[in-house]
Parts: sequence; C-alpha cells; structure tokens
Amino acid sequence: MERIYFQAGPTTLPKEVMLRAKKEWDDFENTGLNIMEHSHRGDTYESIHEEAKTRMRQLLNIPDTHDVLFLQGGASLQFAMVPMNLITAQKTAKYVLTGSWSEKAYKEAKRIGSSEIVVSGKETDYRTLPQMIYESFDNDAYLHITSNNTIYGSQWPDLNAFSHPVLVADMSSDIMSRPFSVSQYGLIYAGAQKNLGPAGVTAVIIRKDLLRESESIPSILSYHVHAENRSLYNTPPVYSIYLLNLVLQWMEEQGGVEEMERRNKKKAETLYNAIDNSSGFYQGYCTPESRSLMNVTFNLNTEEAERHFIKESEAHGFYGLKGHRSVGGIRASIYNAVSQESCEELAAFMLHFQEKYGK
Amino acid sequence: MERIYFQAGPTTLPKEVMLRAKKEWDDFENTGLNIMEHSHRGDTYESIHEEAKTRMRQLLNIPDTHDVLFLQGGASLQFAMVPMNLITAQKTAKYVLTGSWSEKAYKEAKRIGSSEIVVSGKETDYRTLPQMIYESFDNDAYLHITSNNTIYGSQWPDLNAFSHPVLVADMSSDIMSRPFSVSQYGLIYAGAQKNLGPAGVTAVIIRKDLLRESESIPSILSYHVHAENRSLYNTPPVYSIYLLNLVLQWMEEQGGVEEMERRNKKKAETLYNAIDNSSGFYQGYCTPESRSLMNVTFNLNTEEAERHFIKESEAHGFYGLKGHRSVGGIRASIYNAVSQESCEELAAFMLHFQEKYGK
Repeated sequence: MERIYFQAGPTTLPKEVMLRAKKEWDDFENTGLNIMEHSHRGDTYESIHEEAKTRMRQLLNIPDTHDVLFLQGGASLQFAMVPMNLITAQKTAKYVLTGSWSEKAYKEAKRIGSSEIVVSGKETDYRTLPQMIYESFDNDAYLHITSNNTIYGSQWPDLNAFSHPVLVADMSSDIMSRPFSVSQYGLIYAGAQKNLGPAGVTAVIIRKDLLRESESIPSILSYHVHAENRSLYNTPPVYSIYLLNLVLQWMEEQGGVEEMERRNKKKAETLYNAIDNSSGFYQGYCTPESRSLMNVTFNLNTEEAERHFIKESEAHGFYGLKGHRSVGGIRASIYNAVSQESCEELAAFMLHFQEKYGK
Repeated sequence: MERIYFQAGPTTLPKEVMLRAKKEWDDFENTGLNIMEHSHRGDTYESIHEEAKTRMRQLLNIPDTHDVLFLQGGASLQFAMVPMNLITAQKTAKYVLTGSWSEKAYKEAKRIGSSEIVVSGKETDYRTLPQMIYESFDNDAYLHITSNNTIYGSQWPDLNAFSHPVLVADMSSDIMSRPFSVSQYGLIYAGAQKNLGPAGVTAVIIRKDLLRESESIPSILSYHVHAENRSLYNTPPVYSIYLLNLVLQWMEEQGGVEEMERRNKKKAETLYNAIDNSSGFYQGYCTPESRSLMNVTFNLNTEEAERHFIKESEAHGFYGLKGHRSVGGIRASIYNAVSQESCEELAAFMLHFQEKYGK
C-alpha cells in the first residue's frame, strides 16, 4: 500500500524534484561529482546560488528595494537575529501572538531588547486570530506577525492587510502558498522545510534600508554582513540550496504562486468540508475565518477516539496526522507538495471512519 | 578523463557513502520517502540522530563527561557562540593565532567580551606555528586554538600537547583525521564539510560543566539549550546529519581514526616528498615541523608559473588546486576521502610538469 504523508515538516518534497536530484546525483553537469561535493566558491555552485535567488524574486515578485538571503538555523535563529538587528535605541519591538511560534519569537526578543505584546489570541486558546489594533508606530522597532500557525492551524487570511513601517513576518509554514505584496514588509523569514525544500536553509527577504552595520552584532548574525557577501560570508548549506532551487523551479513549472494558492484553497476546502459535513463528529479547532490552508486541525469527541482515528488512519496508509505534542488532536498538513488526490483520499477515509465508528 | 579533486571544502565524500545514499534515495527503510522528507520528531529520523552521536563517541573515544551536539551555521557561528557561552565575568578569552580562521574567531570574540591574543604566528606570515607560552590560567575564560589551518597549510602536530583547564579548539578541517584525547578539551567544534559530511551541519563536543544556563543568551545560541534538547531544540538539518552518519560509518568500516591517520600521513608524505625532491622548483609554504596533513600548500617561483601549473593541472584532470584567494599559490587539500592513488597521481603530474617546464 502506498503511504500518504501529511507531516508538519520536514515533509515530502515534490516527486519531480526528487527524481531530478536523483538523476543528477552522481554527476552534476559532467563534473563527476554531486553538487554537494563542489566548492561554494566555484562557478558550478555559484550559478545555482544566484539562480535560486532570482527564482525567489520572480515567484514572489520581490522589488529591488529588498534583498534575498539564504541563511542557516531555521526560524529559531531568526527569533534572535531579528531583534539583534532591528531593535535600536529607544525603540520597542511589538509582537502579535497567534500561537506557540509567535510566543517563542517574543520570548527570544525579550532577552535581547525592549519588546511588547500588542495583541494576543491566547485567551481563545489560539482558536481565533486577534483583532489588530493600530496605535501610533513612532516608538516601534517593528511589528512581528506569524503568517500561519502550524500547531493550532490558523492563518492570517490576507497578508496585505497589515500596515506598519517595519512589518516583520515569520512565513516559515506558508511562504509560496499564496501571492502577497512583499513591498509591504520590512523583513520576511522562512525555514525551508515546509514549502521551500529540506531542513537546513532559511530564506530571508529584507528591505535594504534595514541592513544596519553594527560592531556589536557578531558577523554571522548580521543581515548586513550576509547581504554584503551575497549569502557567501560563510559556507552555505550547498545541497539544501540546490534542492530549494529545484523546488522553486517546480513551482514555476506548475504555474507559480497563484496556482499554488488555487490548489491550496481547493485542498483545504476538501478537508474542511469533510469536517463541517460530519455533523459534529469532527470539530475544526479554529474558527472558520481563522482557518489555515496549510494545517487543517480538528478534534474528535474524546482523546481515545482521536487515538483510534490515528491508529486506523495509519492502517489505511495515512501518516503524520497526529496533532502537535503540545495540543493533541488531529492535524493534516497540506503544504504545496501535497496533492489534491491525497486530500480527497483522506476525506474519504474520514467519512469511512465516521460511518464505521460514529454511531 | 576522470577528474581528481583536491578542494578545500565542501569537497568529495567517500564513494561508498554516495552510493549508499543513492540507493536509499527513494525509499528509506520502506517508508516510501527519502530520509530528508521525514519528520525530525519521528522514530525513523531519531534513530539516525542518536546513531550519529554514538558513532562519533566511539570513533573519538569521547568520555561521558562530554556531550555531542549537532548544530548549524558552521565554524563561523561557533566563533560567536563560544565567547557568548564561555566568557564569564572577570574572565578573559585567550586566542592563539595561527591563520585567517583563528584571526576571525578572535575578531568575533572581541565583539562579545574580554579577549586577548596570547601568541601569534603572524610575524612569519603564518609559515610556522608559534611557541606556546603558558602563563597563569586563573583569569582565562578559555584558550582557543585552531588545530589545522586550511589557508596557510599548517597544523598542530600533537593535539595532546596543550594544557589548559578550558581548552577550546576549532577542528573544522582535521577532525577525525587522527586520534587525540578529547578529555583534554573543554569544547571542540567542527563544520562538517571537510572530513564529516556535506556543508550544513556542525559538530560540537562540549564538557558538561561548561553547559551554562543564562537568561541573556538567545536559546538557539545556548549550548545548554541544545544539550537539554539532544540537538532537537529546533529542526535539525536532517539530511546533512544522515550523511554525516554514513561518513562516520564509512570511517568505522575503514578501520577508524587510527587508520585515517595512517593513510593521511602517507598521502601527505607523498606530496611533501614531491615538493622536497624538486630541488626548489616547488617550495613548501610552511616550515616542515608546521606542515599540515590536510592541506599541502606550496609555491612555484613566480605567480605566472603558478597560473600555468593550475591551468596545466586542470588539463590533466586535477581540480581545486588553486590556493585560497587571500594568499595565492597552490593548495592540495587531502581530507579523509581523498585516496592515496589521487596523491600519487598528483605527485606524478608535479614531476611531469617540472620536467617539461623546469629548465
């Protein structure tokens, strides 16, 4: 039986990407080496490095006002780098809390400089996104949001709805899933392991006026240093960037970010319909207006029923459906590489499970 | 013509490792996925994660007093993490300068806390290793050395010869190339891309009493946090660690670190003999007692002759021999995965080139 995966990340990459990488495994462009065995200072790797940046620019329509960086350390390192680089004297970093990852981002900022919560969804157990209240921006170093919340399964419905002079977003779990206006953002960061590629590389998009030189920031943690060196200040994660480039190429071939959004909406609709048409057998975790197109979270009536569902789903070939260890429940992560067919098969299984045990 | 690579890193991995990874590409342990597509919280990945640590412990005979961590960001991130975590109040970090990388490490430490140079080889243009002068250690946070200097081609001949209560070593370019006593070290770090695997993962070996909790250190930059979470605080670079584990397994199968040292000595001897027997046509960059077994650096009489040598060597299938852009000359990097045969072929080419043009 073929397995179908709905993992929260790292997760499945597009089959076409895996086939291409396998084909190029032994002998990249007649060099007799895999690309990971090439020097990062050589032309062979350099062209991939630049190609990946250009593809990212084209897919997200990134304006010339912004730089694209490839770093390491995932979103967790960005939780520290953002405040280290962007909190300046007399300014306060503002955080919007919409789940565990924004809580973590805020906690790290507090270690580094003046930081405050502007609004939080915690009182609803992160079932809904909070109302954004805009006050004066004058003393803000930046406003930090998390575009999609993998653990609770919520997502800001419109990335163009925010308005702040220095808007910072953790888009780790939904970058490239839908179009938005990059020009509205000061800084965007995304660990690759959901929609961009394998774990080990982090994409950062930063408005150039925020690239600040500072003697007190360690070089490796300075956006300015990485931008000056075109993300070749230190040895980049060569193979992860190679795969990221292939994933971006795949997106281009599929029709770009607009097509990703069309598919993602349809996939999510398939699963949310299965939940909403179950007469309460399945209960969506988040309120409908806060629901994520990337992570579909739901509950059954009891934890025992949820354990049964997980067990039975695995027996039917579905993997990765267990909710995050911190909240439990069921979670189907349906990033760009997950197909409509997989979602339909899961929806069919949900119906089958309900018919069998829902009496 | 088959190409032979002598790159300074990233560089070639053992052929057996590349074959095994290719074989497991599509379907790791009957999961239908590549290991990079697996969740880092799942049993499939977790067992590799722990296996790699155990292998590292066994190969280097790491005592229970020390932890093994797998991080990201390369040696460059360690240049910042080491002083952030180890410089405490009233203590000064001491640096031994033996080349460009130790200069960089020192420069970063100065940004973070009290740091001093104890001794430097700079006055000899790093052709020789400086004499170590031991004074009182009482005010030292640690003593930092670079075990092998890739750019100049020098290497401390005996890693057991240092004596300091908190000895810290950057072993990025020679870890696993020879046995030494880990117990003498407080902290060892190594970017993987020379002897351990592909770029994207960094091994850290740290004595447990140095794992210090601190509110002021960002979590992702705290050794304590990574140790507490068994290097799973954030998503690890899954595929890089998988390959690192295969490289360690390969070393085991070849006979361990002792066998690596035996081979490395023979390989280096082959090339240094070619230099020393050339009646001055080739001149070793470093003094004989400082010579590296990993990076064999030498010059010809003129820069023009060196350019000619590089060009002709490529025509004969030898790649990666150009010295580092900061110092020029010729450099043959002969890490663990480079074979004795490759070194003999290069030595033969050197003789051939001298006979042809050395009149």
